[in-house]
Amino acid sequence: MPIRVYIEDTDAGGIVFYANYLKFMERARTEFIRSLGIELRSGMQENVNYVVHSLDIKYKKPARLDDLVVVTAKLLKLGRTYLLFEQQVIDEDENTLVTAEVKIACTSLDSGKPRALSRDLVNALS
Amino acid sequence: MPIRVYIEDTDAGGIVFYANYLKFMERARTEFIRSLGIELRSGMQENVNYVVHSLDIKYKKPARLDDLVVVTAKLLKLGRTYLLFEQQVIDEDENTLVTAEVKIACTSLDSGKPRALSRDLVNALS
Amino acid sequence: MPIRVYIEDTDAGGIVFYANYLKFMERARTEFIRSLGIELRSGMQENVNYVVHSLDIKYKKPARLDDLVVVTAKLLKLGRTYLLFEQQVIDEDENTLVTAEVKIACTSLDSGKPRALSRDLVNALS
Amino acid sequence: MPIRVYIEDTDAGGIVFYANYLKFMERARTEFIRSLGIELRSGMQENVNYVVHSLDIKYKKPARLDDLVVVTAKLLKLGRTYLLFEQQVIDEDENTLVTAEVKIACTSLDSGKPRALSRDLVNALS
Repeated sequence: MPIRVYIEDTDAGGIVFYANYLKFMERARTEFIRSLGIELRSGMQENVNYVVHSLDIKYKKPARLDDLVVVTAKLLKLGRTYLLFEQQVIDEDENTLVTAEVKIACTSLDSGKPRALSRDLVNALS
Repeated sequence: MPIRVYIEDTDAGGIVFYANYLKFMERARTEFIRSLGIELRSGMQENVNYVVHSLDIKYKKPARLDDLVVVTAKLLKLGRTYLLFEQQVIDEDENTLVTAEVKIACTSLDSGKPRALSRDLVNALS
Repeated sequence: MPIRVYIEDTDAGGIVFYANYLKFMERARTEFIRSLGIELRSGMQENVNYVVHSLDIKYKKPARLDDLVVVTAKLLKLGRTYLLFEQQVIDEDENTLVTAEVKIACTSLDSGKPRALSRDLVNALS
Repeated sequence: MPIRVYIEDTDAGGIVFYANYLKFMERARTEFIRSLGIELRSGMQENVNYVVHSLDIKYKKPARLDDLVVVTAKLLKLGRTYLLFEQQVIDEDENTLVTAEVKIACTSLDSGKPRALSRDLVNALS
């Protein structure tokens, strides 16, 4: 997924603010899920929420204003109640800027308790 | 309400990103409402949401990283379904950095339709 | 410019947070400028910054998670030191969600003082 | 450092958006540094920037609108060119909501290359 760096993403150091790469990664995961025919809002209407359980991220090189980066989302593992993704932010010269492993838990929107991934999602991923 | 400018608030131009002053102003309005004994989350549980209807904002001077600014919220008008605020961002030398007039509409959280301000809020403001 | 609404853009009211439409509008203005062959970062390297001078915005209907909106940027006026834009956020059913008039001032990055728009930009717009 | 959760911090799931805890943690680190008499902006004027090198974060329980959380920053290790912090977000009932280990690298603002921590900072921490 290509993402353009806008002024909103940068900070006074002239680079993308570190929390904003997490926004980029969330966009890439959402598009991955959407490509399977599943949308987040309709999930919420059925009391399903996807929340980040944990993540491990390494910042190697910064992205800057006007850069066009590619953000990947590769499914490493499909658990009963979670998804484990490997994600990268890559620049136009194929440099890896950021790498992360992100574990997404499926929860009930109201209680916050873990719940099994929806059958639609599991089927689409299998 | 005093607000410190953090790196998250700034952009590659070295100043606070223009949308982020709207966050500061929303914090000041929320504290104004909280000072009346009213919290937003409990309002949502009763199907009440406060949304911005319109705003008119002038950026006079920028705030920068590490600045400590004061953000004001003065109620100009109390309507049946809305609140009109005048807000300012002021720096430590008493310079006015930003001024705005912000109209907040009270709506039903589910339908988005306008509704009368809660009696508690109106009583607290009278 | 089409923009997808991600979870980062929404708030606990289930709608796009009001400051985030300003991010959408800034993206549309940046792409408008880029379509003229001008990039913001190279401008900064020549001590040019574009800052928002003032804006007047009306929120008519909210956008929600997963919505695909279109954000427009139409140049209303080309001043010596500023650009005046009319901008809209429009949903897939052609409803206008947000309208704004935004005045952008050209400034020196170091001093913050107004300066004439670059000749390249003026030529490209004429 | 106490931090109030505002509507800007939340998402359509009704909880704090996962990237926004990184903003909270950055604020706590900045105040830790400021308590040593060191400010970020003056560092930048001397070509010093602090960037996040890597982080490992676990989200245990979500914070919600209007919550008042405490964010801690404890220095685990003082390297020649980096600082390693352990950070927590704790709610009013002393529940740990989020824990993280964050490695901050000291870099030259212009080149992005690692550089030794400033003597002032090292002295203040020793």
